[in-house]
Amino acid sequence: MNNPNIVILGAGYGGIMTAVKLQKSLGPNDANITLVNKHSYHYQTTWLHENAAGTLHHDRTRINIKDVVNTSQVNFVQDTVTSILPEEKKVVLENGELSYDYLVIGLGFEAATFGIPGLKENAFTINSINSARLIRQHIEYNFAKYNNEANPKEERLNIVVGGAGFTGIEFVGELANRIPELCKEYDIPREKVRIINVEAAPTALPGFDPELVEYAMNSLEARGVEFKIGAMIKEVTENKLVFEKDEQREEIATNTVVWAAGVRGNSLVEESGFEANRGRIPVEADLRSKQYSDVFIVGDCALIFNEETERPYPPTAQIAIQMAENTAENIAKLIKGDDHIEPFKPDLKGTVASLGHNDAIGVVFDDKKLFGWSATAMKKVIDNRYLLKLGGPSLLLKKGKLNFFK
Amino acid sequence: MNNPNIVILGAGYGGIMTAVKLQKSLGPNDANITLVNKHSYHYQTTWLHENAAGTLHHDRTRINIKDVVNTSQVNFVQDTVTSILPEEKKVVLENGELSYDYLVIGLGFEAATFGIPGLKENAFTINSINSARLIRQHIEYNFAKYNNEANPKEERLNIVVGGAGFTGIEFVGELANRIPELCKEYDIPREKVRIINVEAAPTALPGFDPELVEYAMNSLEARGVEFKIGAMIKEVTENKLVFEKDEQREEIATNTVVWAAGVRGNSLVEESGFEANRGRIPVEADLRSKQYSDVFIVGDCALIFNEETERPYPPTAQIAIQMAENTAENIAKLIKGDDHIEPFKPDLKGTVASLGHNDAIGVVFDDKKLFGWSATAMKKVIDNRYLLKLGGPSLLLKKGKLNFFK
Repeated sequence: MNNPNIVILGAGYGGIMTAVKLQKSLGPNDANITLVNKHSYHYQTTWLHENAAGTLHHDRTRINIKDVVNTSQVNFVQDTVTSILPEEKKVVLENGELSYDYLVIGLGFEAATFGIPGLKENAFTINSINSARLIRQHIEYNFAKYNNEANPKEERLNIVVGGAGFTGIEFVGELANRIPELCKEYDIPREKVRIINVEAAPTALPGFDPELVEYAMNSLEARGVEFKIGAMIKEVTENKLVFEKDEQREEIATNTVVWAAGVRGNSLVEESGFEANRGRIPVEADLRSKQYSDVFIVGDCALIFNEETERPYPPTAQIAIQMAENTAENIAKLIKGDDHIEPFKPDLKGTVASLGHNDAIGVVFDDKKLFGWSATAMKKVIDNRYLLKLGGPSLLLKKGKLNFFK
Repeated sequence: MNNPNIVILGAGYGGIMTAVKLQKSLGPNDANITLVNKHSYHYQTTWLHENAAGTLHHDRTRINIKDVVNTSQVNFVQDTVTSILPEEKKVVLENGELSYDYLVIGLGFEAATFGIPGLKENAFTINSINSARLIRQHIEYNFAKYNNEANPKEERLNIVVGGAGFTGIEFVGELANRIPELCKEYDIPREKVRIINVEAAPTALPGFDPELVEYAMNSLEARGVEFKIGAMIKEVTENKLVFEKDEQREEIATNTVVWAAGVRGNSLVEESGFEANRGRIPVEADLRSKQYSDVFIVGDCALIFNEETERPYPPTAQIAIQMAENTAENIAKLIKGDDHIEPFKPDLKGTVASLGHNDAIGVVFDDKKLFGWSATAMKKVIDNRYLLKLGGPSLLLKKGKLNFFK
């Protein structure tokens, strides 16, 4: 009469949604569900760039796990995973060990720095509440120092963002809104501050519709963002960044480099013996590990291919949430003795990238393009829909973006 | 028919009050008045500790010079004084030179570090808007970093204030209010943060009534301030402070040392050939230089003795303001051909030290002691009286501390 143990690692989009869905579909006597997370809170990774720029407080972005997970049905263990032992069906934590019958890995991403010298040591990444508010404070601290030095250093006012993908573009959009406020706060002329986006690909937002890309770049350039497109970062030190463009080397004096140009799956999974490709684990159609059939992988750690394009699906919140829903349903079936579990079928609803708080671009449904206010509104609809799904109307009211006309 | 030139150096308490009083007592055809200041604003030095702790925004503390000085009567030159040439009756600025018939020196104080190794390089001082907001950001940045490191460093959370005189006590009082908010903001347990006040004298607030000192220390200790009294600072490095007490050496891991234990007059005056004592210039009874009768010295640069105690008057805002009033009257007399100028007679009204936003101690009028709310209220009355005097009711309403019940 032992209940099966379901262990969920990580309370990001994939992990927490799996827990919330399972607590709805399973009764307390069906299984023991345990959710493990490093912090007591879940956070919306797709809002962190706003916390990092200082345009949204991080308490809006994070959600107390106990506010959405019913702890009479799901055990919550606040701890850090140190390794997974799939042969022994065990997970080792810093302060304990858990056995599982079914394991869900939702341990998220980490930055991929591609061996660029000095990048890992000297660049910031936007990947947690801690790292996002550190970026906010780092920028502000440098502004505060600027007028205290006999020879003011321009490196304090040059902010370089590596990568013009989704996160990079959204982050410079927020910075463009925030910098004028910081200039006022610290008595610094706006024209002394540079926001520079460096992208190695031949275009910003690779993969996006060219018309939307042009709109985005125009909008951002009008607000003072400089683009270096087709520029490879060669080196980052404490106070400069070197890049190469058109076979010319150029240096930017800066002590604020934010790297938003590459992610990989959490390396802990690979180190635990799972075969991986840039940290992402190739999975079966039903999201189970190809090596261990009792292990499901959701979110950025999972590698699945879009059969139409023959390319991997990007690691997005939208896909992580859908994977979680699929996995929760499948585990519930297995627990109830039904082995006919379902393959994962992503249902892509579109993508919207914000360009600061009052502009955005996007593609929704069947390639309908959105610009400006309608895209901004759509972005909020998507964010609010997630909150409703995760924690119902009360969470939506508490953390939602309800200011559609601002 | 050349009008005499009056040049006022510095827009601190002494300089700006001299300018404001002169613009009232002289007509536009009596003299050319020029006020020189590094910034476009005056600030209330006695509020800077609140800006440094982050409990009051610095825009409340600073006042646009053009809001209180009538620029049709007083020329305002925003520039930095590089030297005074009293033999040539000239002042050299970074971007120009001014001739004077009457000079008023109100160039304020700088920190005296008594040759303590590493203090000048590694400690902060609370002496300008720039330095105060840097302290605020420095503390916050270290709190932000704390949770981002694999091995969190206690030096980031230990704040050491050198000196339990007026500024030191008022600053730790504000910190005691601010730290719980910062702990919440950065997910740091309050008990990990230390606020340590190190004072070399055998008591805090030397010169104050012992009953008031005891009240102050009890109030601050109850809010988590630690006192090291009779402790000499021996050395400050980037990440520690060494002090000696009872012939024992002790180290505190810290990268935030705020030095509030000694001031001296602006060294530029001494360097310009004025004889000085710790940077303060001994003056005649009417505040004129003993060497140059066309030079008046007001505020912290002036050294005058209290005849009763045979000790110098302390460099306070109260005395600076009274010196300015006296000097403006005397210069107006001289300009109008009346050589019977008046000696300066300080009228000490009392002293109040705040202990955070809701507690204070003080002595007013004839040694009446004040504690708690009544002292807090009296402090606000004093501050508001100054604003009224400087800029009338409109300035009082804009920058006053009118929240008596908070």
